[in-house]
Amino acid sequence: MVINLDIALELIAEVRKKAKEIGVPMVIAVVDSGGNLIAQQRMDNALLVSVDISLNKAYTAVAVKMPTHELASASQPGQPLFGIHNADGGRVVIFGGGFPLKQQNEIIGGIGVSGGSVEDDILCATAGVERLGAFLEG
Amino acid sequence: MVINLDIALELIAEVRKKAKEIGVPMVIAVVDSGGNLIAQQRMDNALLVSVDISLNKAYTAVAVKMPTHELASASQPGQPLFGIHNADGGRVVIFGGGFPLKQQNEIIGGIGVSGGSVEDDILCATAGVERLGAFLEG
Amino acid sequence: MVINLDIALELIAEVRKKAKEIGVPMVIAVVDSGGNLIAQQRMDNALLVSVDISLNKAYTAVAVKMPTHELASASQPGQPLFGIHNADGGRVVIFGGGFPLKQQNEIIGGIGVSGGSVEDDILCATAGVERLGAFLEG
Amino acid sequence: MVINLDIALELIAEVRKKAKEIGVPMVIAVVDSGGNLIAQQRMDNALLVSVDISLNKAYTAVAVKMPTHELASASQPGQPLFGIHNADGGRVVIFGGGFPLKQQNEIIGGIGVSGGSVEDDILCATAGVERLGAFLEG
Repeated sequence: MVINLDIALELIAEVRKKAKEIGVPMVIAVVDSGGNLIAQQRMDNALLVSVDISLNKAYTAVAVKMPTHELASASQPGQPLFGIHNADGGRVVIFGGGFPLKQQNEIIGGIGVSGGSVEDDILCATAGVERLGAFLEG
Repeated sequence: MVINLDIALELIAEVRKKAKEIGVPMVIAVVDSGGNLIAQQRMDNALLVSVDISLNKAYTAVAVKMPTHELASASQPGQPLFGIHNADGGRVVIFGGGFPLKQQNEIIGGIGVSGGSVEDDILCATAGVERLGAFLEG
Repeated sequence: MVINLDIALELIAEVRKKAKEIGVPMVIAVVDSGGNLIAQQRMDNALLVSVDISLNKAYTAVAVKMPTHELASASQPGQPLFGIHNADGGRVVIFGGGFPLKQQNEIIGGIGVSGGSVEDDILCATAGVERLGAFLEG
Repeated sequence: MVINLDIALELIAEVRKKAKEIGVPMVIAVVDSGGNLIAQQRMDNALLVSVDISLNKAYTAVAVKMPTHELASASQPGQPLFGIHNADGGRVVIFGGGFPLKQQNEIIGGIGVSGGSVEDDILCATAGVERLGAFLEG
């Protein structure tokens, strides 16, 4: 399975629904298995800084094959990956809100959400990841 | 009037419709009056290079307040603006497919389309610009 | 209300007055609501590094919709946003001296000051923010 | 003599006066002999792209020790410096509107103007250069 534009828009719509529910405008990005943008949307009044961060969260999740929040502890000062936030032209995000999109164990894309607290971002991104599950089952 | 996400998605949908009609997958971007991304979509099988180009066409149209194809002749070798394609961190696109979105004489955003020939890109972007006209009238 | 050049120059003049009062030469930048430069001034003998930092402080304050010193604690090692200083092409500044310029709750621009201690920078930037208040009241 | 902030602001004011006279909003930048920004102003409604271009014109004029329009012919395809617009991280501008600021034969800074046609930009920048002459004489 490949994340096409229709699926990407469905995932983003699901994130937007959750974002409205919690009252935090988000920027949401979906990338393919090559880390390249499929779709991105900035909700009205979302933070400008989140345009870059949401896309890079999605990219990072694909590029490191794990959710971005799992990078956080390993990239702290004194830890093995300290400095990795500077890698790849500064595209590696080391806080939560980016998730790989997987079919079984294969990475088929990534989703990144930015705009609220890290917890908000994770909550909303998770809504997108779960929406993918419905596609994969059905 | 401000280009919000709903309007941006309508303009992009209109461009996609035209792109399907001519059978050329496009990447489409809409930015606000500050040149910042509102929404971007890559149609299935569109060129990867068009992700960057479509966004920069939209940006350029806002930043120079004219369609990008109007920059083309002035920026050829021997012409007054030769070299401008390198300005602004390389974000200035000097071929067609980017249009400012205007309300009367005010720039309220920009749209950029990339994926086909310059003529294809202009044709599809124009569909988006015309769709805005319907919003402004109605 | 829009921050035009005349207002930007008034805010900068006010910051300069405060900077002279405390004897610290500053670089001062004002950006619009899209994060784009309106005016910037480097006082004689101010630090060269402050050219970049002051502009990015102003940008950051707009892009995150809060004063840059409020980013400081959340972006320390071990805190939720550690690594955000690298976002947006390295334009996110996570120490004090950048403030959003607001009309009621709307962001209409940003001001950034750099050249002294963080406390000095905040003190001087605040003088600019307060000057805007006088404009808004009329 | 060193271009200080007061002088830079005088030169910019003179350019602004000329720009208003011809009815074209400009962005104007003044840099020191090291090519570093002293002051920059974006007139209301000036092109966003001109923020980057005006500063880089001022930088280029210092960096190559000549007006930027004198670079134009040597940097055309087939000419000796073709490609130089890409040098220095893309900061070299090869069309008119940037001038070195000189005292006798010494470069003491640069001024760059962008916003209109190349002729407009040159006309307005020249007003700034001539204003410096008055300082040097008086």
